[in-house]
Amino acid sequence: MPKVVVDVMPKPEILDPQGKAVLGALPRLGFQGVVDVRQGKRFELEVAGEVTDAVLAQVHEMAETLLSNPVIENFEVRVEQGVEQSA
Amino acid sequence: MPKVVVDVMPKPEILDPQGKAVLGALPRLGFQGVVDVRQGKRFELEVAGEVTDAVLAQVHEMAETLLSNPVIENFEVRVEQGVEQSA
Repeated sequence: MPKVVVDVMPKPEILDPQGKAVLGALPRLGFQGVVDVRQGKRFELEVAGEVTDAVLAQVHEMAETLLSNPVIENFEVRVEQGVEQSA
Repeated sequence: MPKVVVDVMPKPEILDPQGKAVLGALPRLGFQGVVDVRQGKRFELEVAGEVTDAVLAQVHEMAETLLSNPVIENFEVRVEQGVEQSA
């Protein structure tokens, strides 16, 4: 079952306190070499039937009106084949 | 500049109240046809230098210890070429 993924990330010019908090914690846990961390949201939507262009257009509209705040966030809509996530 | 992406999603068997809230709101906004919604986190990490296997192994460890809660969440680590996000 294909799923539609919506990735919502803070716009580059917007301060990302969560990302900065993670970035700050990494050296304390012994991790080196990470220059920047940004944290956003990932939505996985399961739709009834085929994922057509019309469905993607509707998801795009959902992303704009409900899943993201277009003033401070960018989003990207894509289709992912139903692959099992590794733990 | 390639970036390492870590997607953290609630395990399938775990209740996802945020996802359920979004699922419930969609019909009220006039969106039909969405069967399920799951909400998780997306981390974009910028690393110094090349993204080698050693770097990916380290990110995997970061994901296990800091970016996710392995008891209730699954995560996936992948490399994305630095493509600009559409607004």
